[in-house]
Amino acid sequence: MHEFQFFTDRVNLAAGVAYLVDDDFKHAVKVLRKKEGDQILLFDGKGMKYGAVIEDIGKNVAECRILFVEEEKVPDTPIVSVGFGVVKSGALTEIIRDATALGVRRFCPVAMKNSVVKSVNIQRLKRVAIESVKQSGGSIVPEILDVVRLEKWFEIVQDAELKLLAYQSAGVTLRNFLKDRSELNSVAIIFGPEGDFTHEEVKKAVDNGFVPVKLINQRLRSNLAVVSAVAYIMYHFYREVES
Amino acid sequence: MHEFQFFTDRVNLAAGVAYLVDDDFKHAVKVLRKKEGDQILLFDGKGMKYGAVIEDIGKNVAECRILFVEEEKVPDTPIVSVGFGVVKSGALTEIIRDATALGVRRFCPVAMKNSVVKSVNIQRLKRVAIESVKQSGGSIVPEILDVVRLEKWFEIVQDAELKLLAYQSAGVTLRNFLKDRSELNSVAIIFGPEGDFTHEEVKKAVDNGFVPVKLINQRLRSNLAVVSAVAYIMYHFYREVES
Repeated sequence: MHEFQFFTDRVNLAAGVAYLVDDDFKHAVKVLRKKEGDQILLFDGKGMKYGAVIEDIGKNVAECRILFVEEEKVPDTPIVSVGFGVVKSGALTEIIRDATALGVRRFCPVAMKNSVVKSVNIQRLKRVAIESVKQSGGSIVPEILDVVRLEKWFEIVQDAELKLLAYQSAGVTLRNFLKDRSELNSVAIIFGPEGDFTHEEVKKAVDNGFVPVKLINQRLRSNLAVVSAVAYIMYHFYREVES
Repeated sequence: MHEFQFFTDRVNLAAGVAYLVDDDFKHAVKVLRKKEGDQILLFDGKGMKYGAVIEDIGKNVAECRILFVEEEKVPDTPIVSVGFGVVKSGALTEIIRDATALGVRRFCPVAMKNSVVKSVNIQRLKRVAIESVKQSGGSIVPEILDVVRLEKWFEIVQDAELKLLAYQSAGVTLRNFLKDRSELNSVAIIFGPEGDFTHEEVKKAVDNGFVPVKLINQRLRSNLAVVSAVAYIMYHFYREVES
């Protein structure tokens, strides 16, 4: 159960092969010194696991023959999408790492008026997410979207059954708002940047169906706000998975 | 509201004076270059704030005359005590910093069989807690106890109305266990070290009134387990504070 797993998104199931590249190739071949003929466990980040044997090790890629396929039992919790004002790189890394471990399925940095930082290294964040899925023994790698404008975020999550905006000046608390809601398939929540949302951004979000909710009384650092609110949502909608 | 506050636990209210020492002295005098005659805001970490004027700056201490006293409105949430298996210094710092910001009132590192680390720098953790209270705009500095044995922890929190043990093999989830509980004055929760509780430790805790509860399905790093569970408890018991 605790066996090491390598991530790959290059699986050709019809041909029965999968390819290890990038970090996972390096980790398997350079660090763990895996050889041709060794058996390894792969996961595709979408809920599938593969037992495989390494057939051919090239300079940057290892070709693996798939021996068996296993479908992971995925927790039956709502799909949570998290949008956040672009914050500094360290905070961003923590948000992705921790909220991935808690089971968030989609992240989207959103350009906002009070964001200090303007650009984001999405590739790096994707690696952080894959690493976090491995560490937490999960099977689903969340989607990490490129930075978008607020209007685009509204479009992306327009079908979410519940849309929340984390805002300390809100009239209702996250707890009270969720109290009587327990059966849901999708939740979207958006957090402001360090400088918080502008009034105009809040208004736009409300016009697009978002409900402002306050968290707790204290001021929380960006990633603690995200992690604590996401934790609350995840625990609130938690359903047992048979193992 | 966002004004900088200096921490002091050396207040003589009868004499109308307070003393700034240690980090807060350095910060006020060396970093912010406060002079005699400057007005500053102090807080004692127990819910009191003081407006004061610096009267005398010595080598390691600044004497301040108290001008006015203000009692903070403290959120009417249960007093949460967190015990945790001694973990590595970095994780410990994050636990104290984040769980303090969420409003935990007492921390206690507990020596357990599977703790890798054996000693803890309590003074350093106290500074981390004070810093976190300042950052989060809180007013209560949590108590940080010295490392104790498990039996001692049971004594310390024996009067808590609800006692929880965070354990992934538990039969009931934190969510389900808390569902119908909303009026409580005190909660104690204990987390294992990196190597988890031994079966014997779990049994001892149960004998002492602790209820094992599981968090979510994923494996969580020590501090993410603490922060997410504490966040859930805090949001669950959240009550409005008039401001």
